[in-house]
Amino acid sequence: MLAHGLIERKRDGGRIEAAEWRSLASAYARGDVPDYQVSALLMACFLKGLDRAETAALTDAMIASGERLDLAHLGRPRADKHSTGGVGDKVSIVLAPLVASAGVIVPMMSGRSLGHTGGTLDKLESIPGFRTDLSLVETRKQLGDIGCAMIGQTAEIAPADRKMYALRDATATVESIPLMASSIMSKKLSEDLTGLVLDLKRGSGAFLPDLDDVLELADVMIKLAADHECNCVALVTAMDRPLGRACGNALEIEEAIAALKGEGPPDLMSLTYALGAEMLVLAGAAADLDSARRALEKAIGTGRAAQTFQRIIEAQGGNPSVVDDPAALPQAPECEIFPAPRRGLVARVEPRTIGRGVIRLGGGRTRLGDVIHPAVGFVITARPGDWVEAGDPLATIFARDRAGIDAGRETLLSAIVIADEAEPPLPLISHRITTAGVQLYRAD
Amino acid sequence: MLAHGLIERKRDGGRIEAAEWRSLASAYARGDVPDYQVSALLMACFLKGLDRAETAALTDAMIASGERLDLAHLGRPRADKHSTGGVGDKVSIVLAPLVASAGVIVPMMSGRSLGHTGGTLDKLESIPGFRTDLSLVETRKQLGDIGCAMIGQTAEIAPADRKMYALRDATATVESIPLMASSIMSKKLSEDLTGLVLDLKRGSGAFLPDLDDVLELADVMIKLAADHECNCVALVTAMDRPLGRACGNALEIEEAIAALKGEGPPDLMSLTYALGAEMLVLAGAAADLDSARRALEKAIGTGRAAQTFQRIIEAQGGNPSVVDDPAALPQAPECEIFPAPRRGLVARVEPRTIGRGVIRLGGGRTRLGDVIHPAVGFVITARPGDWVEAGDPLATIFARDRAGIDAGRETLLSAIVIADEAEPPLPLISHRITTAGVQLYRAD
Repeated sequence: MLAHGLIERKRDGGRIEAAEWRSLASAYARGDVPDYQVSALLMACFLKGLDRAETAALTDAMIASGERLDLAHLGRPRADKHSTGGVGDKVSIVLAPLVASAGVIVPMMSGRSLGHTGGTLDKLESIPGFRTDLSLVETRKQLGDIGCAMIGQTAEIAPADRKMYALRDATATVESIPLMASSIMSKKLSEDLTGLVLDLKRGSGAFLPDLDDVLELADVMIKLAADHECNCVALVTAMDRPLGRACGNALEIEEAIAALKGEGPPDLMSLTYALGAEMLVLAGAAADLDSARRALEKAIGTGRAAQTFQRIIEAQGGNPSVVDDPAALPQAPECEIFPAPRRGLVARVEPRTIGRGVIRLGGGRTRLGDVIHPAVGFVITARPGDWVEAGDPLATIFARDRAGIDAGRETLLSAIVIADEAEPPLPLISHRITTAGVQLYRAD
Repeated sequence: MLAHGLIERKRDGGRIEAAEWRSLASAYARGDVPDYQVSALLMACFLKGLDRAETAALTDAMIASGERLDLAHLGRPRADKHSTGGVGDKVSIVLAPLVASAGVIVPMMSGRSLGHTGGTLDKLESIPGFRTDLSLVETRKQLGDIGCAMIGQTAEIAPADRKMYALRDATATVESIPLMASSIMSKKLSEDLTGLVLDLKRGSGAFLPDLDDVLELADVMIKLAADHECNCVALVTAMDRPLGRACGNALEIEEAIAALKGEGPPDLMSLTYALGAEMLVLAGAAADLDSARRALEKAIGTGRAAQTFQRIIEAQGGNPSVVDDPAALPQAPECEIFPAPRRGLVARVEPRTIGRGVIRLGGGRTRLGDVIHPAVGFVITARPGDWVEAGDPLATIFARDRAGIDAGRETLLSAIVIADEAEPPLPLISHRITTAGVQLYRAD
């Protein structure tokens, strides 16, 4: 009866009070409210909206439905990053060991592939033996020992959000600013952070393509963080093309390892440094962004960042030799270079098409429970703005068989648009948002 | 994947095509689409609407998800009535045997209690032994033998609607004109009728209180019937007070039996004659409404109507002696007269309050599977417009115990409003709607 009344009220454009969100979230987490009522409520929320107070109340209710990580006893600053997700986005895998190796605790909690985007957990699990399902006790111990754990949302953390998120994915209610903000922040604020940096994607491959929506989302999330005394900065970044070159689970791990050694593609390195420097400053581990960046460059230059990743892999049951020897990662049986079909300017590399292409090769899920083939995907060297001659190599396709190579070729033919002229791509980082407001980003 | 795309499109205000409704309804009936996706879609339909073509396509899809009754071999006209539901509405129980006794086949398919309203099936099951779960084979045989069967929606008839309807009840998506129209008409058009009369309630106790909404619903339903070559007339009737005097399952059966003998309360008799006369004319069993009414009066006067009910009860496993001896119905252990708390004019008898009061006494459900206590309820003799002195008997409460009597007294104190002056109640029947349009109803 409780749920029915709330659905009815939201359907008619009314407000749901904080105590009601709390009852609903805890009843849903316990299994006392059926999915079909929550999905009707979520659709009503999607179409009628939540005001700021409701968004804050829903966030608090989802946090209260579970446990918090409780890391204050470690006596060190704790920071994390959240990205709204894109194609080729392996930043978390570079950033977590890197920032941890610079002295900040990083309890990195990530998700699985969603829609056209890959998932950090799926990528990590392409490392043979790597476990992402640590318990809270194991996570706390590893954070004390190594300063970083790379895990999935545990059963204890915001269970109402975990169930609601899976439901939103299945019921076309993902792209709602208040629902996105409360879902992300309920997880992150359960991590007991002192600092949080947000990587908010825009462009054709982002869940929220438009800048206005992204700025609204940033504002809501930064205020939620402030309510919980967590320092928070957001960067608006480009997702009108894939990030880096590799798209596909094991391929992205290989690229992330290269980046930890300072040898990643320029856009991946730049974004990693920018987000990592914010984390060090937010956590109080560096005085300003310039000194933070120098500390990160040093961690990479001395090999400390790569060693930290190796320790994490070992602690989480994975084969640490992948850091020195990428051939220890799963390898695709078939690969083929994709040549430019004509001369001209690379006008676009469509991230959604690439992301769906990886799924088609078997590297993602179309439904929960699908098995992922970790070795498949693309390494795309062509960048928007490049001039190419017909026959120049633009990318490499990695597939399970020849049929996969053919499918991959089709994907690339439609994703990589070559034209006589082209709009310039979006700047890699365009805006920086803090509690003080929105600034255009100062490129280095 | 299919369902996700349809939800997304409807969420964004788009249209769903006939072939898509068909795939969805059959997949849902088979159990291949989960409830949580359908409930999100229903909420999107509720808030974004369905156009006429979509409503027709959804209706057809729900019919096609199951079997049709197929009664043409009986070689006689077939008519049914549908009411949008109210409090004290026991018309079906009088009308089905009455019209059948006048020579028309009546395959009366009814529902269970819903929200604040009672259900014909629950009322019938208060007759000891009465079965409403006949199979299609049993139903066809009984229609041939007696001309009437009073059953629930079988598993074979519009199964997609049956599942969707239960879901709508739980997810606050009942009060949508296209969803109501398609749900009602998918069931009725599966009955293979030649005529259908609609009793569309308005007023505070109706699911659609406003006249404009009711006229819109009538228009949609009459057009759907015409698409399926079923003659259809709608009457708009009053649900600003309970219909008749009895509210509660066995109490309503007792009142319906009285009406079958010509001894029902005036409003119940008038509405039954009005709807029944339309059915005879629609089915071609009478030349005009006046001669139809005379045929019905004769069926009651000769005792044929009551005998037909007795035969139905016997055929469906019930104790037929209830028709001659109401004491064979379940009796409440406690009863008490409710006196007027002050002198004045009876301004209102609020049907929703009465309906919820019956549920509170144990005579209805708050969730699927609740056991119904058939003997409890109210017999309310006070009518809006009556002048009463303090202490005059207004109603009788029937309860399981003294606590129930106290609860019933509270219900009546709030439901029966006595004042110094009062607005006149709604006319019992205010409008008559046919394919030719809306007319004000000619009172006799």
